[in-house]
Amino acid sequence: MQTEDLLKQVAFIKEIDKLKYIQRKTKLFNSDRYENDAEHSWHLAMMTIVLANHADKPIDVLKVLKMVLIHDIVEIDAGDTFIYDASKNHSNIAEELIAAKRIFGLLPTAQAQEFIAIWEEFEAGITAEAKFAKTMDRFEPLLQNTSNKGGTWAEFNVPYQQVYDKKKAIKDGSATIWNYAEQLLTESVEKGILNNK
Amino acid sequence: MQTEDLLKQVAFIKEIDKLKYIQRKTKLFNSDRYENDAEHSWHLAMMTIVLANHADKPIDVLKVLKMVLIHDIVEIDAGDTFIYDASKNHSNIAEELIAAKRIFGLLPTAQAQEFIAIWEEFEAGITAEAKFAKTMDRFEPLLQNTSNKGGTWAEFNVPYQQVYDKKKAIKDGSATIWNYAEQLLTESVEKGILNNK
Ligand SMILES: [Ca+2]
Repeated sequence: MQTEDLLKQVAFIKEIDKLKYIQRKTKLFNSDRYENDAEHSWHLAMMTIVLANHADKPIDVLKVLKMVLIHDIVEIDAGDTFIYDASKNHSNIAEELIAAKRIFGLLPTAQAQEFIAIWEEFEAGITAEAKFAKTMDRFEPLLQNTSNKGGTWAEFNVPYQQVYDKKKAIKDGSATIWNYAEQLLTESVEKGILNNK
Repeated sequence: MQTEDLLKQVAFIKEIDKLKYIQRKTKLFNSDRYENDAEHSWHLAMMTIVLANHADKPIDVLKVLKMVLIHDIVEIDAGDTFIYDASKNHSNIAEELIAAKRIFGLLPTAQAQEFIAIWEEFEAGITAEAKFAKTMDRFEPLLQNTSNKGGTWAEFNVPYQQVYDKKKAIKDGSATIWNYAEQLLTESVEKGILNNK
């Protein structure tokens, strides 16, 4: 049983290597190189252990780590949806659920169920852990774009209000981080790297 | 104080982005593309949450996750040492400690001390958590090399015994994983992708 489980787990470990090929729209800090989903997930995990003490509500850090480590794995099948692409926003949830079932389904049954549940909890964004995980997920590209002269905001000419509305989710996880993020957005407009017209 | 801490933490979060440029000797699964340290660290974190139930001794999974997430950060300053390079083996520990103090030192004091202690615990390899983290660190490239027709073993013509001696550390964390790993090494010799002459 131990060995049978291990074989399934190894199949999963090999399959998720594909996350390293899923390219995001945002670029590394002070860089022209696109970030991939595996690097992004590692960075969110690091941010979680570093910033956990800023969470407004008590959080189970281990659960948040599981969330951010696995949150993008469905993109192996379903692809990366650009957050500022209004036409595709939330249109691929069904596709992502099929992906979650296929990929996490490689694991032993109990573990597959646990991972699908964690991914669904993250997507729902209701629990304190899901809110803090989403705070991390919104905060990283904000830091990247401000270090890249506006990055994707400038590249796709995304207006301030649209960025602000997406970033507001940061507030649900941490007032301290939101306070800082809001300040960065204001400074970005002042610097002319975020369009407020 | 909260905000002062946050500014230090953001400086650290930006600095560790450099881990995404540190290239390892091993390649992605079934691939010719080199893996970088951030991708590697994410993969070890995923392996930890998937394989934790195979640990021989009870482990604090959160601590193991912290270990594998940060274990290579010192390489931002000290570089990646090739495990089969006998000339450089363990010769850069002093350099790595200086790196740990500089990079983790960007964080608020208490957090810097915690991270340096976790990194040192991993390096010492004595606690159950450090042993399991090292099991993950040795197991990932083994899986990669077997999927890449021998990978670095073939490329640098590393003999079976040398690989076996390095991989034996897997046993200290998990008998089940070691049993499987040993079998993979035997099969690799039989397939002619690992040299046993
Ligand atoms: Ca290393």
